[in-house]
Amino acid sequence: MKVINLFLSFTAVLSAVSTVTAVINVDRSVSSAVRKNKRLTEETISPKVLEMEYAVRGKVVIAANKISSELKEGKGDRSFDHIVFTNIGNPHALGQKPLTWTRQVIALCNLPAEFGVDHPEARLLFPEEAIRRAKEIKAHLGGGTGAYSHSQGAHLFREDVAKFIQKRDQLDANADDIFLTNGASDAVKLLMQTMISSDKCGIMVPIPQYPMYSAFSTLLGGKMVPYYVDESKAWSVAIDDLEKNLEKARKEGITVVGFVIINPGNPTSKVLGRKEVQDICKFCAKHNLVLLADEVYQENVYEDGAEFYSCKRAAYELGLLDDDSLELASFHSTSKGVFGECGRRGGYVELVGFDQKVKDNLYKLASSSLCSNIDGQIMVSLMCRGPDPDSDSYESHENEKKEIFESLKRRSKMVSLGLSSIPGFSCEIATGSMYCFPSIEMPPGAIEAAKDESITPDTLYALDLLEETGICVVPASGFGQIPGRFGFRTTFLASESDLQAAVKSIAKHYTKFSEKYSKTKS
Amino acid sequence: MKVINLFLSFTAVLSAVSTVTAVINVDRSVSSAVRKNKRLTEETISPKVLEMEYAVRGKVVIAANKISSELKEGKGDRSFDHIVFTNIGNPHALGQKPLTWTRQVIALCNLPAEFGVDHPEARLLFPEEAIRRAKEIKAHLGGGTGAYSHSQGAHLFREDVAKFIQKRDQLDANADDIFLTNGASDAVKLLMQTMISSDKCGIMVPIPQYPMYSAFSTLLGGKMVPYYVDESKAWSVAIDDLEKNLEKARKEGITVVGFVIINPGNPTSKVLGRKEVQDICKFCAKHNLVLLADEVYQENVYEDGAEFYSCKRAAYELGLLDDDSLELASFHSTSKGVFGECGRRGGYVELVGFDQKVKDNLYKLASSSLCSNIDGQIMVSLMCRGPDPDSDSYESHENEKKEIFESLKRRSKMVSLGLSSIPGFSCEIATGSMYCFPSIEMPPGAIEAAKDESITPDTLYALDLLEETGICVVPASGFGQIPGRFGFRTTFLASESDLQAAVKSIAKHYTKFSEKYSKTKS
Repeated sequence: MKVINLFLSFTAVLSAVSTVTAVINVDRSVSSAVRKNKRLTEETISPKVLEMEYAVRGKVVIAANKISSELKEGKGDRSFDHIVFTNIGNPHALGQKPLTWTRQVIALCNLPAEFGVDHPEARLLFPEEAIRRAKEIKAHLGGGTGAYSHSQGAHLFREDVAKFIQKRDQLDANADDIFLTNGASDAVKLLMQTMISSDKCGIMVPIPQYPMYSAFSTLLGGKMVPYYVDESKAWSVAIDDLEKNLEKARKEGITVVGFVIINPGNPTSKVLGRKEVQDICKFCAKHNLVLLADEVYQENVYEDGAEFYSCKRAAYELGLLDDDSLELASFHSTSKGVFGECGRRGGYVELVGFDQKVKDNLYKLASSSLCSNIDGQIMVSLMCRGPDPDSDSYESHENEKKEIFESLKRRSKMVSLGLSSIPGFSCEIATGSMYCFPSIEMPPGAIEAAKDESITPDTLYALDLLEETGICVVPASGFGQIPGRFGFRTTFLASESDLQAAVKSIAKHYTKFSEKYSKTKS
Repeated sequence: MKVINLFLSFTAVLSAVSTVTAVINVDRSVSSAVRKNKRLTEETISPKVLEMEYAVRGKVVIAANKISSELKEGKGDRSFDHIVFTNIGNPHALGQKPLTWTRQVIALCNLPAEFGVDHPEARLLFPEEAIRRAKEIKAHLGGGTGAYSHSQGAHLFREDVAKFIQKRDQLDANADDIFLTNGASDAVKLLMQTMISSDKCGIMVPIPQYPMYSAFSTLLGGKMVPYYVDESKAWSVAIDDLEKNLEKARKEGITVVGFVIINPGNPTSKVLGRKEVQDICKFCAKHNLVLLADEVYQENVYEDGAEFYSCKRAAYELGLLDDDSLELASFHSTSKGVFGECGRRGGYVELVGFDQKVKDNLYKLASSSLCSNIDGQIMVSLMCRGPDPDSDSYESHENEKKEIFESLKRRSKMVSLGLSSIPGFSCEIATGSMYCFPSIEMPPGAIEAAKDESITPDTLYALDLLEETGICVVPASGFGQIPGRFGFRTTFLASESDLQAAVKSIAKHYTKFSEKYSKTKS
């Protein structure tokens, strides 16, 4: 900030300012005596922060944001007029509608009673069941949505979560074991921060993975111990490989304390079967690893006959809950499923088999950030307990949910099949989640060009795709993959017509891209 | 969790469950083969998490929550029927009303358009200006409150913050330098996590302090370098002491990188004057320390003639912005002021004089948690830009704000003077913030008894006060104080009548407490 500019810019500022003070005398005796070097530079900040990578909002997305701004300002000469953001699972940004009843309840919870639930005309705008539920929530919260809650979240909402889990798994669940958090991300961080006790501490993470896990491993000073899931076997986990990777890490002096499972998968969209989940639970119990179960896509299962099978249920069926033989943390979120309420930042973790004193420490850690946001907590409650089946809101709520689900199911097939049909592409059918994760044959010239630019070949591909078509995908290298594989992740969240057009654009672009990079320079 | 209990508890669960599955076969061959020791115990979790303390929700509050639950269940025989929670600045929990217009806007932002802003009967429940503003916000957000925003927060809201700062300081401010966060706490953590590059890294923190700073220092593996503010000089900062403390830390091998100022103070409620703020800016510039300015109580200034004087303004008047001689991060929040919207988790930080690459890293770190909650972002926007002065909501909004402010002002005096008048107590008049921080003469028997119980004398006092009166305060030792001083922090947020009763109870209890502990055993 320069003072000369400052006074110029004042003119603009002051026009909007009601009281104008006299020009301030600036004393230059101090500044001239002090340092000119920044305290904080890339050389002096935390190396953990510097090294951390987060591909979902990385290089390609930054480029996409820049182009998007230029397009809005009418700059540049491009063949498209907007960016199609398929880089992130952000359904509402791509046109998915919020569930009406949930928003009516949240609106009423936020309105002071006399302007909302007790307003004589409230019934003109709000259905009975939204008013009833909002009254119940307001009575429980006492201080309303503007007061800090218990640091684990308001008790009523945690009871709703516990009952939801009981119903899902037909197993006991306890509100005291639930922590409501700002999205599942904060819950994962809460656990990983507590588990990582030194830089020799490792957590096993599937490759490809959701890059939050590698990011938090780096940030919190731990080691990520990778295990591969096998694309040739529809992204299945090979237990033999788990043993090998664990053994290898231990030989390198790493104390492996935890194991991440993402089911349904991200980016693989794989829905794990009963045996696979059980095998993983057995592995964790055998090696005394805390199982971090990322189960945020549990409602997103599209394959006929397939169903979500929770780690808790697997652990129970193996007798591992019986004598506390497994420590399990299961994460869920309002951001996915058919809610898609990402901006709400609503999430929870259920802790199973944890030592009470460890839970006390997790509580203390949560309390240092006071509590998660109350509207997010309310949305978790509404996700876990919908409108009363006898109420006026039930049918419409269920219909809205069904419509979103069926559309997601159609789009998962359409994009998977569309990408599969492109020569040079290979794509597993997405049986769950919100993503396709095709591999692509990378032309030799692209591998060479990427090397010259010090980027991965699929970053080169993704940047080229963005520049030429306006479609923003995430390079597969951001998630990790076996050496020599190349590809990208795309969501299938845009509208059906947009997605059809996108698949066509991707196919057309790939032909050009392959031609452009068909040959190496040498 | 025991399986035997599990099946018993099923009965209760299943009654609420629509589909009942067959009894599950439990395989015990796995669990009998595996470990019985927990992976995570207090011995194996992160020592940083274990060592971290956070007094505001610590020992006394845990005891208060327990008593509160007992009272609700009708257990115990006590002279009071509820706990008066004065431990935390949580205004709405103690009866402060939310500002009507802000809640109307948030409600409308959450409602789908046809059920809210575009509903034909909307004007029956909502004023014109709430509808207008909600439309503006909805148009900007695109995906609404359910979509992730830019990781720094939605641009419109950051512009509102920038204009608010411009108006306050009459200085240039830029939306690109603003990060919207889940409360100011998350913004402080963002900065501290980036600044602390090793366990030799120190940040200067005032004593007494808001214990989040010591908690985050421990958690993030840095060193807290204390400097005292002087109670005998109305909690002023002595620059000579700053130099001494810095020197001492450096001799101990600590690289001091940052300096925390809390203005108005927490727990001291001190409003710093122009000269003091300038002296601190000079000190930071001279020693190349990043200034972390906790300015969340900037609206809470009660003394006639006193005004909040921002660090940015001080830095400008010293010419320190001119040539980028100071790196300044200023924090603000919707939780304090007259908004008191704690549960919203709305906050921001403005970065001044930061290196662009460091800002890029802060953005990357923020993006790993995707974005802060959108309702919190909206509340920040509404705090920074209220209803249009020509609108139907302006006058009532201003009146509500004024009423809350005037009441806080009355209560600050009343509690300060009330506590001061208790023999054995000494209490500075709270000129800002939301707290009184009296010192009390500790009877010799209490010091001895506390030692026997391995707690601080003021923890013993606070637990006794809680047991006898139901008033929950935070021991001053949780904030830090000079050796030999004892006391506590109380908010003045309860109703005026409750506070009058509380002061009387505290006085009466202190007489009994002093008698009980007047003598040592020896």
